[in-house]
Amino acid sequence: MAENKSSNITWHAGETTRDDRESVLGQRGVTVWLTGLSGSGKSTVAVAAEHVLVQRGRLAYVLDGDNIRHGLNSNLGFSPEDRSENIRRIGEVAKLFTESGVIVFSSFISPYRSDRDNVRALMGEGDFVEVLVDASLETCEGRDVKGLYQKARAGEIPEFTGISAPYEAPENPELVLDTNVQSVEESVAQLVAYLEKGGYLGAKA
Amino acid sequence: MAENKSSNITWHAGETTRDDRESVLGQRGVTVWLTGLSGSGKSTVAVAAEHVLVQRGRLAYVLDGDNIRHGLNSNLGFSPEDRSENIRRIGEVAKLFTESGVIVFSSFISPYRSDRDNVRALMGEGDFVEVLVDASLETCEGRDVKGLYQKARAGEIPEFTGISAPYEAPENPELVLDTNVQSVEESVAQLVAYLEKGGYLGAKA
Repeated sequence: MAENKSSNITWHAGETTRDDRESVLGQRGVTVWLTGLSGSGKSTVAVAAEHVLVQRGRLAYVLDGDNIRHGLNSNLGFSPEDRSENIRRIGEVAKLFTESGVIVFSSFISPYRSDRDNVRALMGEGDFVEVLVDASLETCEGRDVKGLYQKARAGEIPEFTGISAPYEAPENPELVLDTNVQSVEESVAQLVAYLEKGGYLGAKA
Repeated sequence: MAENKSSNITWHAGETTRDDRESVLGQRGVTVWLTGLSGSGKSTVAVAAEHVLVQRGRLAYVLDGDNIRHGLNSNLGFSPEDRSENIRRIGEVAKLFTESGVIVFSSFISPYRSDRDNVRALMGEGDFVEVLVDASLETCEGRDVKGLYQKARAGEIPEFTGISAPYEAPENPELVLDTNVQSVEESVAQLVAYLEKGGYLGAKA
């Protein structure tokens, strides 16, 4: 221990552990990986859950197309290789956030089971919560908020998940949010209750 | 506003802003970008500064070779293109952490001015603090903790910064830590004082 008189810093040599950061935050870092069809409600749920948690004094952050596709993954296209690399990089970033103590919501279709399983394999036990945002193709196509399904049916978007490319649902997700029948509020409540029960939200120090 | 009775969640619709997260943390997100020769002390300073801040109840996190080169950037080599892509990705990840409210220390040689300037250009005003960890080649080679300079001199490591590849020092860094003459404690104190004066450390709510 050395005291630096110029700034009152007491410097204890040593590395900072994840536990140290989680103690500061009063929560446990985790990757909440939302997967589902376009229009299933992934981003709506992610943004709403982030909002609820931050209102409660937790540190939560959403990774989604807006901040990833235009940034880190702006040099990736939509070939099979690039789609896998897209998910791989997101998984690595989610892992860093998890280790920093943040509750990170990842909101991407992520249609391939193997890509998602590769991300799970990066993470420690309990650090990866796979959430199927479950809405049928009919439900999603009926919503078609962005008009993408119409374009996909017209052949204007190739390799569109659910229409001309497969969606491989998780076999054993930690959680299923059935947005066919429940409201955003209900899905968020279900998700937050899961995190609470799992001890991720801790008690604010 | 909708109240969900099943879990006492009061859900206010709306997006979470960076300000919201920074209020939770009682600090301002920032990327502290440490640049300098191998052996200049970047990682030592980064790890020690992280430790001081976390001890003070701040959320700080270090990005370095250990968690980036083996993870996100494990598919990059050392060609000029790959070196640039390495720094680009680190910059994008640092930007995400900054937007999440975290104080992130980036510890990479990052020898090219243009690569660092590209990262700066990604960030908002005050979000990028470039820190030259300044030790002469003689000082670094004298330390040679990992024996890398010896190998580089023997021609066993090609394109080694300072020996067989250039290091372009920042022209206008926010901070210079002269590790030729000052201790780790002094450098950390100087860095933390800069962050404190700049209002990054706020007041814990």
